[in-house]
Order: sequence, then C-alpha cells, then structure tokens
Amino acid sequence: MNLRVPGPTPLPPEVRQAVSGAMINHRGPEFRELLGAVTAGVREVLQTSNDVLFLTTSGTGGLEAAIVNLLSPGDRVLAVTVGAFGDRFAEIARAFGAEVTVVEAPWGRAADPLAVEEALERVPDARLVLVTHNETSTGVANDLATLGEVVRAHRRGGYPLLLVDAISSAGAMPLFADDWGCDVVISASHKAWMAPPGLAMLSVSERAWAVAERATCPRFYFDLRRARHLAARGETPWTPAVHALQGLRAALARMRAEGLDAVYARHRRVAHRMREGARTLGLELFADPAHASNTVTALYVPEGKDGEALVAALRAQGVIVAGGMGPFRGRVLRVGHMGYVDMADIDGVLRALATAVA
Amino acid sequence: MNLRVPGPTPLPPEVRQAVSGAMINHRGPEFRELLGAVTAGVREVLQTSNDVLFLTTSGTGGLEAAIVNLLSPGDRVLAVTVGAFGDRFAEIARAFGAEVTVVEAPWGRAADPLAVEEALERVPDARLVLVTHNETSTGVANDLATLGEVVRAHRRGGYPLLLVDAISSAGAMPLFADDWGCDVVISASHKAWMAPPGLAMLSVSERAWAVAERATCPRFYFDLRRARHLAARGETPWTPAVHALQGLRAALARMRAEGLDAVYARHRRVAHRMREGARTLGLELFADPAHASNTVTALYVPEGKDGEALVAALRAQGVIVAGGMGPFRGRVLRVGHMGYVDMADIDGVLRALATAVA
Repeated sequence: MNLRVPGPTPLPPEVRQAVSGAMINHRGPEFRELLGAVTAGVREVLQTSNDVLFLTTSGTGGLEAAIVNLLSPGDRVLAVTVGAFGDRFAEIARAFGAEVTVVEAPWGRAADPLAVEEALERVPDARLVLVTHNETSTGVANDLATLGEVVRAHRRGGYPLLLVDAISSAGAMPLFADDWGCDVVISASHKAWMAPPGLAMLSVSERAWAVAERATCPRFYFDLRRARHLAARGETPWTPAVHALQGLRAALARMRAEGLDAVYARHRRVAHRMREGARTLGLELFADPAHASNTVTALYVPEGKDGEALVAALRAQGVIVAGGMGPFRGRVLRVGHMGYVDMADIDGVLRALATAVA
Repeated sequence: MNLRVPGPTPLPPEVRQAVSGAMINHRGPEFRELLGAVTAGVREVLQTSNDVLFLTTSGTGGLEAAIVNLLSPGDRVLAVTVGAFGDRFAEIARAFGAEVTVVEAPWGRAADPLAVEEALERVPDARLVLVTHNETSTGVANDLATLGEVVRAHRRGGYPLLLVDAISSAGAMPLFADDWGCDVVISASHKAWMAPPGLAMLSVSERAWAVAERATCPRFYFDLRRARHLAARGETPWTPAVHALQGLRAALARMRAEGLDAVYARHRRVAHRMREGARTLGLELFADPAHASNTVTALYVPEGKDGEALVAALRAQGVIVAGGMGPFRGRVLRVGHMGYVDMADIDGVLRALATAVA
C-alpha cells in the first residue's frame, strides 16, 4: 500500500523496528535517556532553545494543551484561519472561554499579513494569536516568518503570544521557532516526524511560561507546568507512549543522517513533482500556487467525477489518499507527501491518478 | 529484563509483532475493522453492553475524560480513596470545579462500604461517586460489587453516577460493569491489557450519557459525545494511536484464547505466590491481606534497608520494580504482576529479592 493520506504517515523500517522493542519502565534510566534524546532532536528541528515537552495525545490534544495552559476565560484571542484546522484551533479556544476574533482567508488562499496587522490594530488587547503554519485541509502553507514579524511588532507588555500549529509542517518545512518569535509550537509524531500517532510535542517560550503561571483555565492532564517539572528529571507526569517515543528517536536519527536541509529539499521536490504531475493530468490545484504546501497537495475532483469514487478507484490501485473536508467534502482529493516519502511514491500516485481520471 | 512495575507491562510476542506493522489510514476500512474488534473485545472483558470508547491518552487522561464529561462546576462529588490514585481522581474532580467530599481509608486498607454508605447519607446531593477498583499505590483491591450495591441503593433520580478507575484491575480481576452498576469504567492499554501505553478505554452507561448531555464542564479533545458519534462509523474524532490499538487487538485474542476465567485464575495464582514468597523471605505485606490485590503487591522495605537501594539491587539482577508513592516513598516496594506474567516471572522476582534482602 502507498499510504498517502496527510497523516498518519508510513513508518521507515528502522522506526517499525524501534516500535516493536520490549517495553521499558517509564521511570527508569532507559526512559530518561530516551526522553533526553527526543527532546534534543525535536529542539533541533524546531530551531528553538525553548523547553520542548511531550504529551501522550493527538495533534488536536496538543492544540488544546496550548490553549488551556495560556488562556484565562474571557481573554481576547485572534485566530488566523485558512481552513478546517485553523477553524478547529479557534473552536478549541472558544470551547474554553476565549473571546475569539477570526481573521480568515478563503479556503485555498494563505493568510494575508496585512489583514492580520489590521486585526491586531482593531483588537489591541488580544492575548493570544493562533496561526496554522501548514493547513492540511487545503494544502496551503502560510508565511509564518512574516506573520511572526507582524505579531512581534504589535506585542506590548508580553502580549499577544504567538501559538503555531505546526502539526503538518514541522520536520518537512523550514521552521525557525525562535527567530520567527513563536511562543508555542505544536506538532505531532505521525506527520513529518515518521513516528506512530499518539504523541504531541510542544515548544514553550519563557514569555509563555510567565502567562501559564497566571492563566486560570482549569487543566490537569494537559498541565504543561507538571510536564516541565517532571521533564527536568527525565520523566513525564503520566505514563507516556513509550514505543511512539522509541519510534521517534529512530526517526530523528534518520532525519539527522539525511540532514535537515536535504529533508526540506526532498519535500520541495516531491511536492513539485506532485503538482506538476497533477497539472499534466489536467487536474486543478486547489491551493493558490504561490502558497502551495510542500507536505500535502489538494486537487479539485474533475468535473463529472465523484470524489468518493475517485478515492476508491485509487485505493483499488493500492494508493490511499484523503478526500476533501468541510465544504469541499467529495469535491477535493488530498495527497500527503510528508515524512517517509520519495519520488517513486509520488510517481505511484500519479500513475494511479492517470488511470482513475482517464 | 523482568519488567515488574505496575505498568507499563511486558508485551507478548504477538503484540510486539502487531505493533510493528505498517501504518494504516485511520479513516479507512482496515481501521473500522480494527476499532470494531477491540471495542467488542473490551466490552466482553468489562462485561458490559454499554458503549466502549477509546481515547489516545494515558489512564490519567481517561480519568479526566470521565470527569469533564459528567461534571458541572459546583457539583458535589464523593471521592472514595484508599491511596495515591484515588487521591488523583479526587484532585482531577477538584481541578474542574467539583465540591469534593472525601471518604478515605488509611493506605493499605480497603474502602469500607459502611463509611461510603454514611457519606452518601451525609451528602445526599452527590452527583458522582469516584471509586478505585484496584489501588496501584498500595496493592489493595476494593470490593467493587458491594460498593456498587451501596451506590445503587442511594441513587435517586439518576444520581449519583458511579465512576470506576479500573486502570490496574480490568483484564486481570473479575469486573462486571453492568451487574455492579458502574456508569463509567476507565482502563488503560498498558496494564493488564498487555498493549503499549497511550490508550484509555471508557465504558459509558445510558444514565451517564444523559448526564453528559447536560454537563457544563468545558471539553473538546476528551469530549466523549464526539467519540461516540464517530465510533458509530468506525472512526475516532482525532488521529488515534493506531499501533496501540493493533497491539490491543492481538492481546485481546490472546486473552480470549486463554479464557477470561483462566486469566483471572492465573492472576490469583501469581499474586498468591508473590505474597507467600515474600512472607517466606520475612518481608511484610503493605496491604491488608484480606484485600491484597492480584495485580500489584506492595511490600514494606525491611528495617535498616533503603528503598531506593533495594530497587537498584533488584535492577542489577534484571528485575525492575517500583518504589513507594507519596508518604511511603523509599519505604515500600511495589511489584506488578498483571497481564503478560506467569509463575516463572514471580519466581525470578523472589530469587532476586532473596539476594537483595539477604
């Protein structure tokens, strides 16, 4: 099977090997070493000197952790959304009592830094700004460097904090968490990290820790202060997904061996091949080409074809892709190409697509 | 290594094999089949016809899910606690706004049904009763059948609900969730279920669903209504710990092949051997013998010995056990014997103990 959904992603052989190891005590020296290794590895990929913490949860749980640790009910939050996952981040903030102001772009377009700037001027008391680095529902990558600059320019007295959903970007696209002023970066093991699902990782800036100390949103399992406290002695507050961490360690070693720049270049190449190949087949790209993602490509289902039937036709050829989300259910195909992926995988998708749309 | 902490527990070979499989799409037919199989298997073990749902989280996350779905801030909650994990369940309820009344027994003793009865009479407006089936910090098993009967006898207009922490009991000790009137049973994959950590499973009664519809505690990731809605079509709201579910399916097949009664009998035998062997070595049982757990044995560290040094001495012989918790840190040893365990494992622990305490 050529698993090409935008997560969970295929596991390299050494990750599958690592995942099948014997169980270990989560409060012993082997685990301390494991946690130290993955913490250092993730920090390197995120280009941050901030704390990096691991939670046993999905990416969505990671977003919730960011919110409940930094929000006090009633706080004003600016949510920059360009699709289903940006909407979800905003919805989580609302669920926990935020007054959310939304800045949205039409699906398929990237966030407009000028619109974000205007919103920050309109809502000068925003405590948090929520941004999706790479929107998995539309295949659009936002210009996080510029958005980070805009937020930084409007920061007064430590606010607003910049919270970045990097679930489907980190490890596949350049991300300079510290240089770009990200206070919290959230990612998840089963995307470009090539590890099994079940782990969210969060980087947390000193500015964010200061806010977390005062935030009044109730929290327990996701309390990052507990996680930080235990991480200092190589443990987690609750039993962690040990085997997913073991898989992640192997995946990080693979990324280091390839080299981060080479990893990013490979993602650029496969994404380019995917987009060009689709165009050659007469398929229309859903995303604004200027902001097309290097980890997921969304394509319009051709006129007269049914989206679900197309997904099934690809599946019959051993290629597993995802359909559209929200208003584009049945009208869009989404092909994941992050993590363990090379040109041959993309060529396989294109061959199957050629048959399916013929 | 003879991993004898009270979770995570060793994985049988077929579970390790299952866990190392290729990743699958979590929104496709293979996953639907997987979710159906583990749901049926867990339901059988819990002896319930209620909904069974899976959350990607630890056991503690499962406890939090039970609370946030059923609590409205300000609700009166009766927490029956006999150790660290009962205290934790109460602490979670408090964190989310419950007015908690605690009924406690001294560490090492079981909950007294009469004390619970008196408390229910004193607090007739209790909305939830929290009970630990098996207290991992002390090696004590509560008489859940009787406690369930007491709660049932005091139920008026659907309240209180009975929420049971069965994290270290389910799959190793008989548990009749429906017969014993349990509204929510929480367990976790890495205990007697012989699967990797990262999955909590919860059974939810119709009475509990009615309360969940009205409960006002904010929730998103742990929202069981979403989980129920998606489970009906063989999915989970957020990306699940696919490989842990694959491991659990293999473990459930193993339990079914052995037979549940045989599984319970084996746990009785290994626990008996552990306790008798420890006594023979002159070690004192921490738990009231009448309520000693069949999944974890807590032993006093002998006079003049240091608890941490003893754990290290066992480790040097390849036997990994846990130390005491809370006030008994350094003064108690805890040996896990749940899930993938047989007499030879216990004999190994006893041999190492004999050397270490000599």
